Amino acid sequence: MTRKALSNESTFMLDRICIPVADELSGVEACLGEELVSGIETIDSITRYVVRNGGKRVRPALMLLCARVSGAKVGPRQAAAIEMLHTASLLHDDVVDDAAVRRGLPSARARWGNQVSVLVGDFLLSRASRIFVEEGDRRIMTALSEAIGKTTEGELLEIAHQNDASTDASLYMRIIQGKTAAIFDFAARAPAISAGLGPSLEESLGLFGFEVGQAFQLADDALDYVAEESRLGKASGTDLREGKLTYPLIVALERSSAEERASIRDALIAGKATREEFGRIRSIIDRHCGIEATLRLARELAESAKSRLNSFKPSIERDALAMLADYAAERGE
Amino acid sequence: MTRKALSNESTFMLDRICIPVADELSGVEACLGEELVSGIETIDSITRYVVRNGGKRVRPALMLLCARVSGAKVGPRQAAAIEMLHTASLLHDDVVDDAAVRRGLPSARARWGNQVSVLVGDFLLSRASRIFVEEGDRRIMTALSEAIGKTTEGELLEIAHQNDASTDASLYMRIIQGKTAAIFDFAARAPAISAGLGPSLEESLGLFGFEVGQAFQLADDALDYVAEESRLGKASGTDLREGKLTYPLIVALERSSAEERASIRDALIAGKATREEFGRIRSIIDRHCGIEATLRLARELAESAKSRLNSFKPSIERDALAMLADYAAERGE
Repeated sequence: MTRKALSNESTFMLDRICIPVADELSGVEACLGEELVSGIETIDSITRYVVRNGGKRVRPALMLLCARVSGAKVGPRQAAAIEMLHTASLLHDDVVDDAAVRRGLPSARARWGNQVSVLVGDFLLSRASRIFVEEGDRRIMTALSEAIGKTTEGELLEIAHQNDASTDASLYMRIIQGKTAAIFDFAARAPAISAGLGPSLEESLGLFGFEVGQAFQLADDALDYVAEESRLGKASGTDLREGKLTYPLIVALERSSAEERASIRDALIAGKATREEFGRIRSIIDRHCGIEATLRLARELAESAKSRLNSFKPSIERDALAMLADYAAERGE
Repeated sequence: MTRKALSNESTFMLDRICIPVADELSGVEACLGEELVSGIETIDSITRYVVRNGGKRVRPALMLLCARVSGAKVGPRQAAAIEMLHTASLLHDDVVDDAAVRRGLPSARARWGNQVSVLVGDFLLSRASRIFVEEGDRRIMTALSEAIGKTTEGELLEIAHQNDASTDASLYMRIIQGKTAAIFDFAARAPAISAGLGPSLEESLGLFGFEVGQAFQLADDALDYVAEESRLGKASGTDLREGKLTYPLIVALERSSAEERASIRDALIAGKATREEFGRIRSIIDRHCGIEATLRLARELAESAKSRLNSFKPSIERDALAMLADYAAERGE
């Protein structure tokens, strides 16, 4: 299959996943427009830009589908709040990564500077919290503050190990469990809490989100080595350039000769791999099947996630969640 | 009185204010050490640096004293959480302002970069939220998320009007009511909510904090034009260099000749006033009594704040709060 065809396939898959909650997802878009009004026109236009040119609303879809299988009343506002949390973390991440390109458009940071990225991120975080506070369930607030905390700790852990060639698979997993999976976990767990399903089912849905989130990030990290800029909306090889040792390269490092290891270390520490160097690293990864190993682990996590759904009775929403797990493992955002 | 004597006077005043809650304030220091452990050593040492080299704990003292006059059980953890909120906003502000110096020591941003400032700020925010969530009072969570939202909106409003010579007194007040006074308001209001004092007394204490916060910021903005770096721990003239039109200059602008107005505009738009230009602006402010007008407004707000305390029965803590209002109006942090 060509890359183009794969991309269309994947968009088609997400469209199918979203069918059961299509109406609520339209509501999410409306909420994102209505809720994010600060009364400061220049800021509102920036917020709109950032949120409108947003992602594929994977996290709101996850939350809404989990609400359906839980029998929870979760409206578009809460699902919009999940997207706000995600967007806030992207904005803060843009500052962090000094990223020039995000989703194929200039990042907010590149366009408006660090100031705006940090504060619009804070603004989104505070609006999202407000929505969950209104919900009034203390356990949801606890889960939310834990999720935000873990996201930040994962990102801090990643920074602490930037350009660190000794990062191993277990450290990498801790990083992605924080920076990506904690919010997926919350998005899936909150509706179960809301519906009062009890600890066991709450844990099942939370773990479903947690594993899907990890699969999603693994696939994303594989794509960073294989995707073209036009497709991923993100320059490929970004992680290497930023000195981030991700799973495909960790696998390759483990299996590498001393000589290969030295060139990976150099590229990682230099932090600014040229196209040529990137090609060299890419071929080391290919030699040791780093991409395959990454996608295999993503798939295992997705399968484990799907097994968590067995505690719920069959429905089109449950099927859609299973498909969402497959989607996560096959491609990132 | 010499500047040095004034500074000692002011430290002495704060020490006296803190006497009734001295034990709890020691507890705050202990909490700030214990609660801020992420498990990532490099990050923990940064967090410790930022928090230990922190401010004078004015906000925790405010909260603890308000707890005493309210009869609320507010422990050192919540007072520590208020300091975390404040420190988080300083860290994000450092990125925003590209500030090289904060409190006389290199800012976290200058020392560790934007990455760390943003994420350690997020980490502090999430820990602070967690502490208030544990408290379990939904109304406190609502007040907290509103306070964080307003702080951010105030900061965004300030950025939106950077280098804007048309900023007037009313816009300036909106900015400081958000960026500074909202957290003071929360620090004073939360204990009243916690104690269940009812809407009227809650509002009295909240407004006390709100007005003290504004007085505090006004005094701070006056100091930015008169203080020496060694005293304020912050380069003087920073606001002008950052293109921020604060009250002393707003007053001067209103009273200026066309020629003076043009030089203020130039200095503000250039955004990088030289020492010479700063001296010129300073003398325009002096000519039109901009500092006096600023301190007078601070004093009026402090008096109004003190009158809010009349609804509470006399106590050493109430006296300490009145002294805190005076302290705020006489100097910033």
